Amino acid sequence: MNLAVLGFGNVARALARLLHQQRGAHPFRINAIHTRHGTACNVSGLSTDPEFGPPAASLEEVLERAKAQVLVELTTLNPENGEPALTHIPTALRRGLHVVTANKGPVACAYHGLRDEARRHNVRFLHEAVTMDGTPVYNMVRQCLPAATVTGFAGALNSTTKVILEAMARGHSFEEGIAQARALGVAEGDPWFDIEGWDSACKAAALANVWMDARTTPAQVDRKGIRQLTPEKLAEAAAKGKRIVLVSRARRTAQGVKLRVRAEVLDRDDVLASMHGTSNLLVLETDLMGQFGVFTLNPGPEQTAYGVFADLMEIARNS
Amino acid sequence: MNLAVLGFGNVARALARLLHQQRGAHPFRINAIHTRHGTACNVSGLSTDPEFGPPAASLEEVLERAKAQVLVELTTLNPENGEPALTHIPTALRRGLHVVTANKGPVACAYHGLRDEARRHNVRFLHEAVTMDGTPVYNMVRQCLPAATVTGFAGALNSTTKVILEAMARGHSFEEGIAQARALGVAEGDPWFDIEGWDSACKAAALANVWMDARTTPAQVDRKGIRQLTPEKLAEAAAKGKRIVLVSRARRTAQGVKLRVRAEVLDRDDVLASMHGTSNLLVLETDLMGQFGVFTLNPGPEQTAYGVFADLMEIARNS
Repeated sequence: MNLAVLGFGNVARALARLLHQQRGAHPFRINAIHTRHGTACNVSGLSTDPEFGPPAASLEEVLERAKAQVLVELTTLNPENGEPALTHIPTALRRGLHVVTANKGPVACAYHGLRDEARRHNVRFLHEAVTMDGTPVYNMVRQCLPAATVTGFAGALNSTTKVILEAMARGHSFEEGIAQARALGVAEGDPWFDIEGWDSACKAAALANVWMDARTTPAQVDRKGIRQLTPEKLAEAAAKGKRIVLVSRARRTAQGVKLRVRAEVLDRDDVLASMHGTSNLLVLETDLMGQFGVFTLNPGPEQTAYGVFADLMEIARNS
Repeated sequence: MNLAVLGFGNVARALARLLHQQRGAHPFRINAIHTRHGTACNVSGLSTDPEFGPPAASLEEVLERAKAQVLVELTTLNPENGEPALTHIPTALRRGLHVVTANKGPVACAYHGLRDEARRHNVRFLHEAVTMDGTPVYNMVRQCLPAATVTGFAGALNSTTKVILEAMARGHSFEEGIAQARALGVAEGDPWFDIEGWDSACKAAALANVWMDARTTPAQVDRKGIRQLTPEKLAEAAAKGKRIVLVSRARRTAQGVKLRVRAEVLDRDDVLASMHGTSNLLVLETDLMGQFGVFTLNPGPEQTAYGVFADLMEIARNS
């Protein structure tokens, strides 16, 4: 199966290594890698360390030259408008390509349109890796929760804020917390995307769009980040046996799906307070299966790449 | 699809209600319910509160009269020998019936034989509900972790011991802890099955048989329960910021898969120490997806019944 990959950051590199390692049993072939800075293309498959030429003139040209059957969208997100993925994905779907993305933007900002576009062209639009790295979330609900409906959720889904809040609880400053998150490799290019709760809002919107038919966007999430918190407030909470965690919540109301991102003061025993460092956790509320959840421990680009791979396997299984 | 159900305890009753509620969209029909005390059978489907006659002479007779396509095995486990399920299941498989069970015994004691028997007869043997109530575990790994291998796991999988240890940590006696577990409805008929670690050993053996080709039994698990613990020991651990939890662990060694059940002294921040009351948690270690996990919050018979239902849906989807 021929792939074209957009973006060549840590996740794309990890994916290239994983596909190379699995090539005997699962013959996916990366025929093109396209970034703003250059394009590598070989219709017989690229090496894991390909040589890039100048950037191709258009995505269409890349897909054509690569004879791609699947677009793997791994560009960096512009959180304000979901671009450039929001342009790339429909372009590929309209040409009859399946699309797999690890990019929150499209699912958070425009899920229904993309899903419907995929259906019109009888292809798949899959996005396992956008919320919990590679931990099965979207695929788990779709495949393992037959007839059940997700009625709400609550998640500690952002690593950067977790690292900053834990640093402050140990008496460090906000800035030292940011530095620690950077050192762990979890803070996005601009850490304020995490600190202001945008990342948590994107993930909440993505989950609610897919599971609760919310048809929402991150901007519509009732969102407040952690910038108002101080080491003093964290110490005060800790003295009471509490923890402060940035939580994304969704619930269904008579007025529709309500999404909220807040730094919540939780009992230490609350499951939402049980994750540390870069680990994330999600509690699902369902009609038929009660409450249960998933978590991911210290994930890295390899896990995100695995989430993309799981989607590719799902496409291959049904093609 | 015609079902014959063995056993009519809380899970079977919850399953009957669930199937009744879903009957419009998913036409599973319970045509027989068979217990030691009586048999109810109607080839056009039983009500959710059926009338029982005297027990049928044999399981074969029940399956025949019910025109059953699936056996749902929900009898009570004899942990020493896995009976009576271990007799029932091959009987049904050999007659070409699919089997779904919520009964740990067969998966813990005889998984490979049953799996192979099912393959020989081209039917399914599914068991989602045996370890984490209905939370997707077996189905999740089979369907959502393509090409990955589970290399080990660690779980806080037993509710009774969790309730007893938490009661002792609050200063109550062992016996008061047992009473609390009974009041919550989680202690098995004989709570010593949980206290001595047999339930945790059964669950570990089941997971290791399915995921790690362990071909083991609960008796082969290196098992120690919690009876040696006292309120004093729990208080001592708590004073050091620790928690004591009965943990089931599996790891692969040069000598094969090693399984261990122990009351472990864990940091309060350890994810295995994060569950309370009747909630359970499992961490999976994998080759391609790193470490991640699932947990179930305050499950009851409805969740276990949903696990059985999910297996029935899987069979219906592929039949």
